[in-house]
Amino acid sequence: MSTALVPGSFDPPTNGHIDVIARCSAVFDRVVVAILLNSTKKPLFTDEERLAMLATSCDPMGNVELTTFEGLLVDQAASIDADVIVKGLRAISDFDYELSMAQMNRNLSGIVTMFVATKPEFGYLSSSMVKEVSRLGGSVSGLVPPHVEEALKERTGS
Amino acid sequence: MSTALVPGSFDPPTNGHIDVIARCSAVFDRVVVAILLNSTKKPLFTDEERLAMLATSCDPMGNVELTTFEGLLVDQAASIDADVIVKGLRAISDFDYELSMAQMNRNLSGIVTMFVATKPEFGYLSSSMVKEVSRLGGSVSGLVPPHVEEALKERTGS
Amino acid sequence: MSTALVPGSFDPPTNGHIDVIARCSAVFDRVVVAILLNSTKKPLFTDEERLAMLATSCDPMGNVELTTFEGLLVDQAASIDADVIVKGLRAISDFDYELSMAQMNRNLSGIVTMFVATKPEFGYLSSSMVKEVSRLGGSVSGLVPPHVEEALKERTGS
Amino acid sequence: MSTALVPGSFDPPTNGHIDVIARCSAVFDRVVVAILLNSTKKPLFTDEERLAMLATSCDPMGNVELTTFEGLLVDQAASIDADVIVKGLRAISDFDYELSMAQMNRNLSGIVTMFVATKPEFGYLSSSMVKEVSRLGGSVSGLVPPHVEEALKERTGS
Amino acid sequence: MSTALVPGSFDPPTNGHIDVIARCSAVFDRVVVAILLNSTKKPLFTDEERLAMLATSCDPMGNVELTTFEGLLVDQAASIDADVIVKGLRAISDFDYELSMAQMNRNLSGIVTMFVATKPEFGYLSSSMVKEVSRLGGSVSGLVPPHVEEALKERTGS
Amino acid sequence: MSTALVPGSFDPPTNGHIDVIARCSAVFDRVVVAILLNSTKKPLFTDEERLAMLATSCDPMGNVELTTFEGLLVDQAASIDADVIVKGLRAISDFDYELSMAQMNRNLSGIVTMFVATKPEFGYLSSSMVKEVSRLGGSVSGLVPPHVEEALKERTGS
Repeated sequence: MSTALVPGSFDPPTNGHIDVIARCSAVFDRVVVAILLNSTKKPLFTDEERLAMLATSCDPMGNVELTTFEGLLVDQAASIDADVIVKGLRAISDFDYELSMAQMNRNLSGIVTMFVATKPEFGYLSSSMVKEVSRLGGSVSGLVPPHVEEALKERTGS
Repeated sequence: MSTALVPGSFDPPTNGHIDVIARCSAVFDRVVVAILLNSTKKPLFTDEERLAMLATSCDPMGNVELTTFEGLLVDQAASIDADVIVKGLRAISDFDYELSMAQMNRNLSGIVTMFVATKPEFGYLSSSMVKEVSRLGGSVSGLVPPHVEEALKERTGS
Repeated sequence: MSTALVPGSFDPPTNGHIDVIARCSAVFDRVVVAILLNSTKKPLFTDEERLAMLATSCDPMGNVELTTFEGLLVDQAASIDADVIVKGLRAISDFDYELSMAQMNRNLSGIVTMFVATKPEFGYLSSSMVKEVSRLGGSVSGLVPPHVEEALKERTGS
Repeated sequence: MSTALVPGSFDPPTNGHIDVIARCSAVFDRVVVAILLNSTKKPLFTDEERLAMLATSCDPMGNVELTTFEGLLVDQAASIDADVIVKGLRAISDFDYELSMAQMNRNLSGIVTMFVATKPEFGYLSSSMVKEVSRLGGSVSGLVPPHVEEALKERTGS
Repeated sequence: MSTALVPGSFDPPTNGHIDVIARCSAVFDRVVVAILLNSTKKPLFTDEERLAMLATSCDPMGNVELTTFEGLLVDQAASIDADVIVKGLRAISDFDYELSMAQMNRNLSGIVTMFVATKPEFGYLSSSMVKEVSRLGGSVSGLVPPHVEEALKERTGS
Repeated sequence: MSTALVPGSFDPPTNGHIDVIARCSAVFDRVVVAILLNSTKKPLFTDEERLAMLATSCDPMGNVELTTFEGLLVDQAASIDADVIVKGLRAISDFDYELSMAQMNRNLSGIVTMFVATKPEFGYLSSSMVKEVSRLGGSVSGLVPPHVEEALKERTGS
């Protein structure tokens, strides 16, 4: 049985994230989506809210589990018996940083990281850009799931 | 059961290629390595030779099959029931081209491509560089499997 | 009156090319699309065929003229009184080469080059990839205008 | 009549900025340079000072208007009837971020972004680097207009 | 006599840094490693600690001097009669920033910057990633000198 | 005594090449510029012509020797007792390829490669672009030394 670990902040999840998780759900037996709890960054949504947002989108996929984690990603991977870490890849700037992380993680525990190209129409999407547009009153329809769009409107008061 | 398709020219296979195939072998149930028969490029090794070189390295992995193909990669993927295409990723210049191919293939048949970062010490390796160094009399020891090193010495007469 | 020069090989024009020309048509008073006649490359379509393909897509825009040229791009720009050269920009590898060409052209005649980001869903498109897919029997529907799709099928016999 | 919107922080304007604005002034009928008021960043110069600095450099161009804005760039573009957003492009790291913004803005309102390559000798310039060098007592002569150089000396006390 | 200046934060020095300094030691008559004292960033190690760490690794090289500096790098270069600035180069994101700095420094004083490619196996290393991994309890063995590994364990309490 | 090897095709040398060689001449005791004789590419100028062109520009530097070579660069480096290979670095696409070559060469013989950023105003220059512009009748004044400009005019008949 193959298990893929999909880590991220998901603050909030975008359609790009959901696309990556859906691709993993189709390829691997078991997919664990893990929200990184980063104590130094103040998220817009609590981890409970982010878990709930992901659950709405991922529950229909059947083989996707949700969790949160702190500490080293390789420790989280070991604790869930992951065979592979999967990350979305949008742009060159992603590539550089993610490649460094992948090499460090492979050095730490031997686990390999695979990168999934997001759909071209989601290639420019990021959670921070979605939050910024929403905060300034722009529509993020089509860029995030409808329930995330609602939550963004409420939270940013726009 | 998950099946990964690993396409390439493998003229000849390098330790970077073998590393990617071994990672796939550990993650997926079944791995099909497919040599692209490109009629417009004159390879250094025949497809039979390349199949034999890959067999020596991949047979011990247990779940790796070898084949050749012509035509569209997505047709080959369909004919072996592949769930995912897997490519190694070394450098930025790879990224650009491979990302375009991945998007085109996803558009053609819906199949997703995953990228594996090669080990840092193989990050600069390519079949063409290995052939060039061998042709000029340099040692490629440690960059290709020993049996490929032998074959290169014989073929390039160095 | 502002005149933009949009140069290219257009062998054949893709939906990415048409998108760039349409954006120029909306921004500039006059748009001249110029097919580069490159004697060292053997095109799939003759310049007459490429002119006809572009005409079908560009005539409805109203302010787009079509021509062919040989020699320096800056000479062509001068001969049509262009204020600006406009190029589509897809990926990093484009960027490097196009930036060099833009600097060289600005050095030669002072003319400035502007780059238009193609729509994300056309970001991976290139004429050569479209020809390759068509030659191998894949569908390029949605990637090129319908009349170009027809012409490709006839020419590649697929 | 074509209107181009050139947004930025201009804290302070550099010769690279002025070069981009001058190119636009030569190509478009009307150019609106808009200073982004970003409440989360503490600028070195007030918006009045930045407007005055830009006025000194842009007034002789004849068709350049200056303004400030908050909120979404696409709303600012709509309010001034802009046909196109124009940004300078220096390096690869610019490209990635600016391309994402351009795609987001096109998704929000349909407006297209064009990129102008800055002159090679200004290709490494940024407002933050100019401020840092000035703060540490280095000369920024030739990198910013003379009146900006004076203002920097006074403000950084160097 | 040729003198190379190798500037950096070295908070802490990694095996990538030591590799670059060792390459310089073999090529230049005299190498000055200069720790940048950046008052706006809070380092993990004091400058005395960083000097001591570098001394342990560099003293055996024979022709390496250690110092600290504030202010412009070109002023530091002038004060030690440096012929060249040398920086390690890992990835594309480095390249962009370092190239800008190199151009600015050459513009300020005429001094040239040379870039050394780090060994592939150190290509993904950075001081900040080493600190983060250590803080989260991961092993950085093989990535930093043994005495730096010890200091990291003590400082991060892991 | 430090010796730097500066390899290249120099077909023809540009002002970017001369700038890199001049930087090396100022930093290293001895500089050996080596023209790669590549039997598979048909150069515009013979190796004697290229040697003569380089001699005109480099002789005044005093410590620059000129030679030609075939085979592995690391063998050439060993035969002249080079301490370091030096290459110019213009753009991202250079970086990727040159970094791979540098890693391969370091793996083959331990020799290190250093990269010099060319002056911004030469950052877009390449021998092939200079030849193309000259062939099409454009001026390359300021981009190559005057005697190279003359030779290009004669050779390309423009």
